[in-house]
Amino acid sequence: MYMHVKAMEYMTTTGQLPCNVKFMIEGEEEVGSESLGWFVERNQEKLSNDVILISDTGMIANDIPSITTGLRGLSYVEVEVTGPNRDLHSGLYGGAVANPINVLTKMIASLTDENNHITIPGFYDDVEELSQAERAKMAQAPFSKEAYCKSIGIEDTYGEATYTTNERNSIRPTLDVNGIWGGYTGEGAKTVIASQAFAKISMRLVPDQDWKEITTLFKNHFESIAPKGVTVKVHPHHGGQAYVTPIDSLGYKAASKAYESTFGKTPIPQRSGGSIPIVALFEKELKSKTILMGFGLDSDAIHSPNEHFGVWNYLKGIETIPQFYHYFTQMSK
Amino acid sequence: MYMHVKAMEYMTTTGQLPCNVKFMIEGEEEVGSESLGWFVERNQEKLSNDVILISDTGMIANDIPSITTGLRGLSYVEVEVTGPNRDLHSGLYGGAVANPINVLTKMIASLTDENNHITIPGFYDDVEELSQAERAKMAQAPFSKEAYCKSIGIEDTYGEATYTTNERNSIRPTLDVNGIWGGYTGEGAKTVIASQAFAKISMRLVPDQDWKEITTLFKNHFESIAPKGVTVKVHPHHGGQAYVTPIDSLGYKAASKAYESTFGKTPIPQRSGGSIPIVALFEKELKSKTILMGFGLDSDAIHSPNEHFGVWNYLKGIETIPQFYHYFTQMSK
Repeated sequence: MYMHVKAMEYMTTTGQLPCNVKFMIEGEEEVGSESLGWFVERNQEKLSNDVILISDTGMIANDIPSITTGLRGLSYVEVEVTGPNRDLHSGLYGGAVANPINVLTKMIASLTDENNHITIPGFYDDVEELSQAERAKMAQAPFSKEAYCKSIGIEDTYGEATYTTNERNSIRPTLDVNGIWGGYTGEGAKTVIASQAFAKISMRLVPDQDWKEITTLFKNHFESIAPKGVTVKVHPHHGGQAYVTPIDSLGYKAASKAYESTFGKTPIPQRSGGSIPIVALFEKELKSKTILMGFGLDSDAIHSPNEHFGVWNYLKGIETIPQFYHYFTQMSK
Repeated sequence: MYMHVKAMEYMTTTGQLPCNVKFMIEGEEEVGSESLGWFVERNQEKLSNDVILISDTGMIANDIPSITTGLRGLSYVEVEVTGPNRDLHSGLYGGAVANPINVLTKMIASLTDENNHITIPGFYDDVEELSQAERAKMAQAPFSKEAYCKSIGIEDTYGEATYTTNERNSIRPTLDVNGIWGGYTGEGAKTVIASQAFAKISMRLVPDQDWKEITTLFKNHFESIAPKGVTVKVHPHHGGQAYVTPIDSLGYKAASKAYESTFGKTPIPQRSGGSIPIVALFEKELKSKTILMGFGLDSDAIHSPNEHFGVWNYLKGIETIPQFYHYFTQMSK
């Protein structure tokens, strides 16, 4: 209802939309957008545009609007450690046979050192290093470590030495285990040495790291550190390149004005730790920059139980986006 | 059918069983025999005996009979690592928040060093150290490392430095992860930082280690190594003491003669890596030694898919055990 009113309001005021709009709906984003690349490559003319707008990001707070100017890349792999050809009795064989779960924990643990620096050889070779001035500017964004910890119920943050929380989750690459399993996981006890153990591991990447190269570095390293007595397989899942957009582009300036008109405040440019692999794909194939105008909040619990999106934010987006069409068209003339 | 024939054969030859036999059937052995202690404590007179016979062990091979003279003890615990109060998006939070799975792998990995020595302070304090002479005697038992590896499909064995395979799985304590789980474990990828990660961990113990003390040492150590940003809980499951029986007892000698009469060979005394907690319980409460006459084989795949027990071994047990009654009674006179 509200959306109709706002769209009508704009249309009745201006007589028409100020620009052409092409919609693309993507349903595979969370699993790597495998089909989209194929489609975009084959429909470049149909998809030609002046600027791309994606609403799949968040902002600092409802009273602190922000525009996402950077996304991390991603390399997602699954690993498999196989020991004996069957589950073994942990009494009869325990101590004499490599236990795939123990081995997997050792292998994963070795991927980061005591400073939470990733140990895969070559991993940091292409990492974009920000200048002290850039880091100082980032540090100006409002942030309360206390509120951050409280919002997710932790006593303290954790991460790579010499970087702040906001740097760790945006301009620095990561290595997180997203899932692990092996052996007996039911109620009570079972004295078994499992034949196999598994983990899903993702690495968030930063500008200049190539996700395919990082996947290869991971695979080669992980296979090389397998001890005798087990075999290790690495299955790459999917990935994507990191992305940074300049804040002096027409698109960014138009978005900034749109937020000003509806939030009454200039939005803060902010790099996100998330990944939207299609942004780099669009830039490569369509030669267009993407503007990320998202209205979510950290408290939306995305990728978590009870994921949600506020009605206030939904309506605020509907108000703000037509203003982007307006300013972008006006400033393009 | 065969059992009836053998029992009848013995009965018709001798007119009766040579001794009284009391049966006890225990259905909780795999989950720690919690109720049995209660029962045994309250029925000591009813359960009084000269010797206890348990058939729950194996032998070296069908043509190499052996009698188990030692069992390892056990301490079985479950650990729980909790980070954020909900699952988090691994892009938005990755790198800045302790990931419970990454942390769990580090904590478990740190429990053993590069020589596969367990690092829990005090863990080895009471471990019975065998003399070089005893170890040399153990080394005489027939063993082919090649056949051992082949039977379970591994390229090489693995374990504590300076000990042989047969020592690692009998006279040395272990720490094995029996199960691990956390995060997304379904098909494909999910970019999540799990709120919690779990593992089931068992330690096989050797004579003179007290299982309750070891459980306490584990719990205190594991909780102490938790990094900031997570909380750790250790839930003890169950346990039992290790056991060693002398080979110069009446019971052992009678068992040895029984095997000689049916296998045509003197059985080899051998320590097993498994645990039968009730054996130590019986000794404490009933002041009786247990003789372990088992007829299983390594290839039975116990605690594994397709666990089985050979018909030949079943029948051989039926033949051999009445001979134990016979010799034990005769030698007791």
